Amino acid sequence: MSANVTTSGSAASGGPVHPALIEDLVAANRILAGHGVLDAYGHVSMRHPAHPGRYLMSRSLAPELVTGDDIMEYDLDSNPVESRERVMFLERFIHGEVYKARPEVNAIVHSHSPSVVPFGVSSVPLRPLYHMGAFLHPGVPVFEIRQVAGMTDLLVRSPELGAALARSLGDRPVALMRGHGNVVVAATVPLAVFRAIYTETNARLQMQAINLGGSVTYLEPEEGRKAEATNAGTIARPWELWKKRVLHP
Amino acid sequence: MSANVTTSGSAASGGPVHPALIEDLVAANRILAGHGVLDAYGHVSMRHPAHPGRYLMSRSLAPELVTGDDIMEYDLDSNPVESRERVMFLERFIHGEVYKARPEVNAIVHSHSPSVVPFGVSSVPLRPLYHMGAFLHPGVPVFEIRQVAGMTDLLVRSPELGAALARSLGDRPVALMRGHGNVVVAATVPLAVFRAIYTETNARLQMQAINLGGSVTYLEPEEGRKAEATNAGTIARPWELWKKRVLHP
Amino acid sequence: MSANVTTSGSAASGGPVHPALIEDLVAANRILAGHGVLDAYGHVSMRHPAHPGRYLMSRSLAPELVTGDDIMEYDLDSNPVESRERVMFLERFIHGEVYKARPEVNAIVHSHSPSVVPFGVSSVPLRPLYHMGAFLHPGVPVFEIRQVAGMTDLLVRSPELGAALARSLGDRPVALMRGHGNVVVAATVPLAVFRAIYTETNARLQMQAINLGGSVTYLEPEEGRKAEATNAGTIARPWELWKKRVLHP
Amino acid sequence: MSANVTTSGSAASGGPVHPALIEDLVAANRILAGHGVLDAYGHVSMRHPAHPGRYLMSRSLAPELVTGDDIMEYDLDSNPVESRERVMFLERFIHGEVYKARPEVNAIVHSHSPSVVPFGVSSVPLRPLYHMGAFLHPGVPVFEIRQVAGMTDLLVRSPELGAALARSLGDRPVALMRGHGNVVVAATVPLAVFRAIYTETNARLQMQAINLGGSVTYLEPEEGRKAEATNAGTIARPWELWKKRVLHP
Repeated sequence: MSANVTTSGSAASGGPVHPALIEDLVAANRILAGHGVLDAYGHVSMRHPAHPGRYLMSRSLAPELVTGDDIMEYDLDSNPVESRERVMFLERFIHGEVYKARPEVNAIVHSHSPSVVPFGVSSVPLRPLYHMGAFLHPGVPVFEIRQVAGMTDLLVRSPELGAALARSLGDRPVALMRGHGNVVVAATVPLAVFRAIYTETNARLQMQAINLGGSVTYLEPEEGRKAEATNAGTIARPWELWKKRVLHP
Repeated sequence: MSANVTTSGSAASGGPVHPALIEDLVAANRILAGHGVLDAYGHVSMRHPAHPGRYLMSRSLAPELVTGDDIMEYDLDSNPVESRERVMFLERFIHGEVYKARPEVNAIVHSHSPSVVPFGVSSVPLRPLYHMGAFLHPGVPVFEIRQVAGMTDLLVRSPELGAALARSLGDRPVALMRGHGNVVVAATVPLAVFRAIYTETNARLQMQAINLGGSVTYLEPEEGRKAEATNAGTIARPWELWKKRVLHP
Repeated sequence: MSANVTTSGSAASGGPVHPALIEDLVAANRILAGHGVLDAYGHVSMRHPAHPGRYLMSRSLAPELVTGDDIMEYDLDSNPVESRERVMFLERFIHGEVYKARPEVNAIVHSHSPSVVPFGVSSVPLRPLYHMGAFLHPGVPVFEIRQVAGMTDLLVRSPELGAALARSLGDRPVALMRGHGNVVVAATVPLAVFRAIYTETNARLQMQAINLGGSVTYLEPEEGRKAEATNAGTIARPWELWKKRVLHP
Repeated sequence: MSANVTTSGSAASGGPVHPALIEDLVAANRILAGHGVLDAYGHVSMRHPAHPGRYLMSRSLAPELVTGDDIMEYDLDSNPVESRERVMFLERFIHGEVYKARPEVNAIVHSHSPSVVPFGVSSVPLRPLYHMGAFLHPGVPVFEIRQVAGMTDLLVRSPELGAALARSLGDRPVALMRGHGNVVVAATVPLAVFRAIYTETNARLQMQAINLGGSVTYLEPEEGRKAEATNAGTIARPWELWKKRVLHP
């Protein structure tokens, strides 16, 4: 991680980051690509472990190709600490503005997760169907960019749009973006990856349950809270498997 | 299999188990992961071949990663014979309590099999659609944990909940768990794997048949009984293929 | 192919078969497994090139594992020329009886092709949706085994049942088997494989078209006849690809 | 690229083509096969970079198998510059006639893209659902071959049919072909590949959104125009990934 030297950026670096953490961030990119949550688009970030006013994310690159050398450091206005003329994601403001609004959040995934996109354009809300999707219990808001910016290219390409998305997200773990994708946040990189994968899975299962044509029983909020707490204690199991698949296949 | 020495557990071991049987249990884990019946969660157990009061199952680990060294031995109260501080599955009581209630059962799969979850939350019952799903002919009950424990994290994390699930299962091969997954039982490991895979497949085909919008003809119970008996004689064919794929790919 | 010596069978062999033809039959097994038309079950046969009263098919074995050494020879009553105590498919009578009824047929696939099973249990008929499924234009009958044998295990396990299925098939290329699977026939092995693959694909596309909820335009019979004739001239292209994938991956 | 010598063809060559461009055309074939947009059928072409009256496309071959040596050169009447008795695609007139009608188009994909075929036979129109499908904003016409030629084999096998398809396409990027497939055009090979992949994806997501049963919000034309312009600037990112996967896996 060479992002600890400030030569051309507008902000001071938060300092060196342990290689194991960078490895986790790289793994997160590849894991989500491997699960089809990310395709050639989308991005994953982590807050700087030593400096809450900085975050780390790849230069503009397909997630499947990301290595440690591609990780850049940004301040929360999403200015690069050291750009070295690397191309940056247009939508990095999603990350900076959510980190500003949510001090307890340390990892963010933005994706076009395929089973989730339909819920972003439908009047049918995404709801937790089984315990693996329990974290959805607070409800899943849909960010309608037209309400804040009228007709756009749908991208969150400014601090203002990032802040508007953060307001829509509120204190929840997932927000959908109409006609675009979604954003998933968590306190750690493994938990953000877990939530992104099971948001996709829960969405697919909910579609299928609806298509059966009968009534559907969703999780009660209390069930959601309890199951979410339990799942938080089991993250090490999938994370071990997922990292092994992408780093030591 | 080192589970034949009692140092820290609360129960005596059922004795050494032939490596070929352990290999089958390991293969079962990987086969079900390979078919997408298990993801990073879920588990497979077998009853101890020499001691009906003991069963064998991996320590808490993603099924795809299980090796013979990860297999632990439990008594039917799901106490480990020798824990050696290994982390255990929270839901091992599914296995212990079903083995208590069903003396003829020697293998159990608990999964979040993706096409089956929707039937666990829908008012539309899972039914045998074709001969490969014939074993579903006695009907597929849905275990509603709320009826026995109110608002929970949905996990079968105690002997009492395991016993309640076993009562819901009754003498059938498969029970769904609302908002969670399912449990599949059989007299042998290969048959439990077969049933878990074709429960998933039958569920997917049933969804599609319903979506066609016409009337659907299901198997008659007598057809189910006859086809199930026939299929039982052909298990060696898929088992040979599936083991070869995971053990000698 | 060692099936040219009669030691224990009830019928004389049709004589040696060119290895390239055996290779095509082996490839057909693996191609259909690779496309998911066959799983661990199902079978492919070819008529003996020198003796129309004999056919060739694997011993009871998962199609993905079939090699030239597994190919057995049968007479049209489905007696083996030389059994050598090999286990035979219970449903080999599908092949023998269809070869009797259809002199122009030289290759047969029996499968539980997943997208086709739903059409076998639904009141909605399978119909050609696009030119690749043009061969379905004569209509796709559904064989209801109850009409000829009452409550069964659904398997075509006798010459009588095979003959009944052949009557249901009539002069068409595909028949569905209610609660079971389907049978696909053609003049050559590559064409039978082509038809089995595009029966599966057409079924999946038809499901999706129906699910869109609007009206659906199917091929007219004349379009079907013309497109089928054209496609027959292009079989070499997919066959080259498919064989290369399974024989020289 | 040996297509710069005229020995047996009816037209003069447009001259040698840089190997990097031929590599892009080869990559396009393999990328689209890898994404399931093409199976053993379908084709991709590019206009000759130095001579707008010529185009380049593989001989009749499954796209997954195409190499640089398989690329042939054609004039816009789809006569080969040098046939060397290679088999040509029956439907090459799609390419020649669209190049005639659309001077700004330099790359064309014809496919049976699976999620798109249902929209070609349904009364429900394909519409842009999310920003990745923004290029669909001008509407997606359906070419009904019956209107120009009555009962056919559905193939665009003549200059007249190619011209009729080009009229149906008009100035749009995508046209569906009823009971057959679709045609996608763009100014560059990477953009044509991008559009073919996201036409498939948008179609799948639209099906799912419709199946949820609620109301669906599509992109407004202005959103479509703006998002399309933005996406055009990001093509390098997926193209780098896709090429790497097929050329240096």
